[in-house]
Amino acid sequence: MLRIAVLGCGRIGRMHAENIHTHPRAVLAGVFDVVKAASEDIASRLGVPHFPTSDAVFDSAEVDAILIATSTATHADFIEQAMRCGKPVLCEKPIDLSLDRVKLCAERIAGSDLPIMLGFVRRFDEGHGAVRKAVAAGTLGELHQLTITSRDPDIATDAYIEASGGIFHDMTIHDFDMARFIMGEEFETVSAVGARLVSPELMERCDDYDTITVVMTTASGKQCTILNSRRAVYGSDQRVEAFGSAGMAISENRTEHGAKIYGATFTDQGAPNLNFFIERYGSAFAAEIDAFVDAVETGQPPSVGFADGQKALELAEAARLSVREGRSVKLSEFS
Amino acid sequence: MLRIAVLGCGRIGRMHAENIHTHPRAVLAGVFDVVKAASEDIASRLGVPHFPTSDAVFDSAEVDAILIATSTATHADFIEQAMRCGKPVLCEKPIDLSLDRVKLCAERIAGSDLPIMLGFVRRFDEGHGAVRKAVAAGTLGELHQLTITSRDPDIATDAYIEASGGIFHDMTIHDFDMARFIMGEEFETVSAVGARLVSPELMERCDDYDTITVVMTTASGKQCTILNSRRAVYGSDQRVEAFGSAGMAISENRTEHGAKIYGATFTDQGAPNLNFFIERYGSAFAAEIDAFVDAVETGQPPSVGFADGQKALELAEAARLSVREGRSVKLSEFS
Amino acid sequence: MLRIAVLGCGRIGRMHAENIHTHPRAVLAGVFDVVKAASEDIASRLGVPHFPTSDAVFDSAEVDAILIATSTATHADFIEQAMRCGKPVLCEKPIDLSLDRVKLCAERIAGSDLPIMLGFVRRFDEGHGAVRKAVAAGTLGELHQLTITSRDPDIATDAYIEASGGIFHDMTIHDFDMARFIMGEEFETVSAVGARLVSPELMERCDDYDTITVVMTTASGKQCTILNSRRAVYGSDQRVEAFGSAGMAISENRTEHGAKIYGATFTDQGAPNLNFFIERYGSAFAAEIDAFVDAVETGQPPSVGFADGQKALELAEAARLSVREGRSVKLSEFS
Amino acid sequence: MLRIAVLGCGRIGRMHAENIHTHPRAVLAGVFDVVKAASEDIASRLGVPHFPTSDAVFDSAEVDAILIATSTATHADFIEQAMRCGKPVLCEKPIDLSLDRVKLCAERIAGSDLPIMLGFVRRFDEGHGAVRKAVAAGTLGELHQLTITSRDPDIATDAYIEASGGIFHDMTIHDFDMARFIMGEEFETVSAVGARLVSPELMERCDDYDTITVVMTTASGKQCTILNSRRAVYGSDQRVEAFGSAGMAISENRTEHGAKIYGATFTDQGAPNLNFFIERYGSAFAAEIDAFVDAVETGQPPSVGFADGQKALELAEAARLSVREGRSVKLSEFS
Repeated sequence: MLRIAVLGCGRIGRMHAENIHTHPRAVLAGVFDVVKAASEDIASRLGVPHFPTSDAVFDSAEVDAILIATSTATHADFIEQAMRCGKPVLCEKPIDLSLDRVKLCAERIAGSDLPIMLGFVRRFDEGHGAVRKAVAAGTLGELHQLTITSRDPDIATDAYIEASGGIFHDMTIHDFDMARFIMGEEFETVSAVGARLVSPELMERCDDYDTITVVMTTASGKQCTILNSRRAVYGSDQRVEAFGSAGMAISENRTEHGAKIYGATFTDQGAPNLNFFIERYGSAFAAEIDAFVDAVETGQPPSVGFADGQKALELAEAARLSVREGRSVKLSEFS
Repeated sequence: MLRIAVLGCGRIGRMHAENIHTHPRAVLAGVFDVVKAASEDIASRLGVPHFPTSDAVFDSAEVDAILIATSTATHADFIEQAMRCGKPVLCEKPIDLSLDRVKLCAERIAGSDLPIMLGFVRRFDEGHGAVRKAVAAGTLGELHQLTITSRDPDIATDAYIEASGGIFHDMTIHDFDMARFIMGEEFETVSAVGARLVSPELMERCDDYDTITVVMTTASGKQCTILNSRRAVYGSDQRVEAFGSAGMAISENRTEHGAKIYGATFTDQGAPNLNFFIERYGSAFAAEIDAFVDAVETGQPPSVGFADGQKALELAEAARLSVREGRSVKLSEFS
Repeated sequence: MLRIAVLGCGRIGRMHAENIHTHPRAVLAGVFDVVKAASEDIASRLGVPHFPTSDAVFDSAEVDAILIATSTATHADFIEQAMRCGKPVLCEKPIDLSLDRVKLCAERIAGSDLPIMLGFVRRFDEGHGAVRKAVAAGTLGELHQLTITSRDPDIATDAYIEASGGIFHDMTIHDFDMARFIMGEEFETVSAVGARLVSPELMERCDDYDTITVVMTTASGKQCTILNSRRAVYGSDQRVEAFGSAGMAISENRTEHGAKIYGATFTDQGAPNLNFFIERYGSAFAAEIDAFVDAVETGQPPSVGFADGQKALELAEAARLSVREGRSVKLSEFS
Repeated sequence: MLRIAVLGCGRIGRMHAENIHTHPRAVLAGVFDVVKAASEDIASRLGVPHFPTSDAVFDSAEVDAILIATSTATHADFIEQAMRCGKPVLCEKPIDLSLDRVKLCAERIAGSDLPIMLGFVRRFDEGHGAVRKAVAAGTLGELHQLTITSRDPDIATDAYIEASGGIFHDMTIHDFDMARFIMGEEFETVSAVGARLVSPELMERCDDYDTITVVMTTASGKQCTILNSRRAVYGSDQRVEAFGSAGMAISENRTEHGAKIYGATFTDQGAPNLNFFIERYGSAFAAEIDAFVDAVETGQPPSVGFADGQKALELAEAARLSVREGRSVKLSEFS
């Protein structure tokens, strides 16, 4: 049984803690949060220890591995500390909002062969995964066009948005990783447009965008389009479409339930999409823990690691530059 | 070019006349209706002759074959006259409302090998046909359960219903034929229930039912269920589901167009079903003319002939008896 | 926190135990199984007590309520014992295979107002529930035809089938309850046909059927059709269709994931249906525990109780009689 | 009855001729083709005159209006001649491959108020039209993102491609018009990428692309993405998705028929998409003739006219420039 401690007891941290607690090959070794009440609450509910400090977690002999679900600014530090303490890490995305900080972190942890897994949870969604399998297995022939639609059910709070690092770093980052995951090839150019349509004032204030379209190309000419919006009233819109020379695969949205209504003026009316990402990607979050336990147990590198986090961040930087300068950006500018 | 005349210029007759007129291997030789104005109207619009009497049609040397779309009571007489005159026939269903009259007709035309095709148009629907192909090809393994849902978009006029011969003879007759078409085996038992839910007073007056469920079994134990209603507010509901040991095939409804709407409380809302049977089965009606021209040109028996009309009528009789006597009826009672 | 003990640590018992263990308002008070190893295993994995005897469970002051997931033959006895001990019960279906035993149980527990909830879990499926809501809310107008398709992914072991009490008591029992749940009206007549198509020899030996169609009617003429098969190769087939004067609602199947494949000869190819009932009805099983805790906490009668179990059993008896005697059976014969 | 002559008896011309021939308010006044045999063939089959020269068509007193389905290079000349002869025109797209020629044509016909309708047939597709209605009616709130997927079932012959004017002028031109039709707002910027993945050698030879992605923005920040491929093995892929502040509308593909197959490893497998644009847009082509007859009869400007043809061509020019220069192009460069 792998003893995993969870750093950060916010919404995502609590969910991870519960998933670890019920995992057949893992034990929840304890939790920590800078807000003591938050960690006490989850600890008492699940009957596990809560640690007084983050250092206590890293130093504990009862902790084999660490899940980092704290605020973004702490991620790189905690990754470095975990490596120093010899504990494998599953870290929520992004590694950091600054590409320079990520590069520095990479230097500092160079040489460690402990598993560092990045929390790009969507890779573990069965539907998206089936698209990737179809691509990898050649079922679709050669991939030509990849389209990722990713729209949140609603915009987060002003405070969240202001601290998010912008839509490309906070939201599109998942899609950049999904694009790399399915494409199986790196991108050379990034071209993005951004607009302020959902919440114009907030976006103006943050110098950010709530509605974006990104087009990326690979050296071989493959094309990837990403569509994001901060608000889709019909619920979380999470689709991936891979089009190739021999076919197409689409990962469709999932609805709350399977009932359809037919009336005098319409047919086939379905339930809203699963709304919240914790529901939409519920089984993916569980599978992510599985994969992390696998990686630690087998000593194999995790399927999604530190370098993937860095690559996704480079794409986010390129997209932001593209929309600001109104031009196509080459990834080579960032390497 | 096969020269086909159309008897009967009501809604269905006019449609057939237009299909023949634009058919690449057929010519519309002329039309006849007891209501002279009806035949004149379609004749002048399409630039073809209208005949003064039905006898003139049967006697004309310019007519190779005859499509019978007159009222049901005339069908058997016209079939007999066509055989005497040596002209192949495509006759709208049913042959007659009386099984005795059908048997008499069968005796009278015995010996003729001229093609007589029955207008069970649904056999020519591509979706239903694909289900049949899947069954016949063994794609579904051995067929176990067949379910046919057939609901009209709205109940016909009182006058129509009163003269229809009852729901089993007028409406379910199509489904009895579809059941035989897909099952590829004859039925041994018929068990039906009927209710008066759509238009209770009219049904009471006609001693008829507007909502029925029929279950039929074959000697090998295969089961077929038919669901009918005289009114489905969401449009014509025409589905066929074949379930077998190796899979299932479902012919789904067709909607007016392919647009789907997503809103704050729903997803995937489609257009109403194609409403009117002439739209729903539009391409099937055209394919039916094709099959008739094929049969006459090749001299092969039509894929759906007189005997099929008789068998469907026997099932209708059995179903009516079942609902009236509240018991399972054996087909052997009718042979 | 409601302290619930689980009797029976088979597949279903273990699942219930885990659901109770993670329920926010319940505590798993312990488990018992006649096979000691089975109860020890789950008890040690979840860190809860295992009881040496069933009496120890009923007598324990640490147990507020009991979930009965033992073999069918013990259900009625345990329900009676629970009532005597003053402990609310959630009992897996069916109450008993014998209607007489159920009636005796009903007499013995008469007067108790402790909650007895029956484990008709499908009532808690969100899709089926949405159909029921549409019916109850009048969205569909007046209900005319209800169709329930329920096919298992594969036939159980010979031993299971031999002890099952037959398809109507073991499998259709769920659909009888679903029919009553959605119809909101009792049935008057039952007419069933049965065949031996999936596993003829086993069925012959057990005098049972693996493929059945049941048609039931209410006093007002509403019709319900149930289609069952012991094996659907494409996975668990669980659909409910309610057709009414103002519309239709269909609870569709759920697939393993949302990806669709398109190739040179096909489109829209989806993943298999969720295969196993524990997956298909996973969230329903969790919601069932919710409803039980609610009932006990509020003292309100459970939404599905002892009388529902008895009614479903009566329908099963009627269906078996119908198929054996080849006639329509009136429910009044059983009251 | 409007007497319409058809210039050009290729595949599209013949289809238009048949649609006019069976139109209730139009008469096929005759046909012309530079290949005499082509016009004779269709003329004899439909029993209408064939004209010896195009001038004979323009000069005929028996011709009220003209449908131009000749090769692209003749379109502008024929439009000008029709205006001089006082005959309304329905002209296949594009007006010309050269924007300069189109502008010259515009000058020459300035002042004429005779109807000139452009054959952007997809505007008359019911599904795409329903998306537009949802946008125009405000059902979707304010439009934010529009995505048009348009992939041909297979690449045309080398000869066709070589004379096509390139993918943007030949294929995307339909999507540029669809984008304007649904957006209801003009575009300001165009950014395109192109690749040679379907037929690299042919594309190299023609300096063309077979796989393109175009992103366009309006002054208000709305975004439109167009995805094109010259070959989709699963049949004609024609989808339009409009995403707005209050919902989404998607015009989905149409399959050959409505049957779905379920097997041991898959569910819901549908028929291929309607393959050929003449089938996919069959009813749209008929509705287009309707709209033309309406425009001529009422004297109202057609819903899609000369200016729409010019605007679509400007977008094609901008897209080609964008992909060649690897930069975002402003439409103002072309005005």
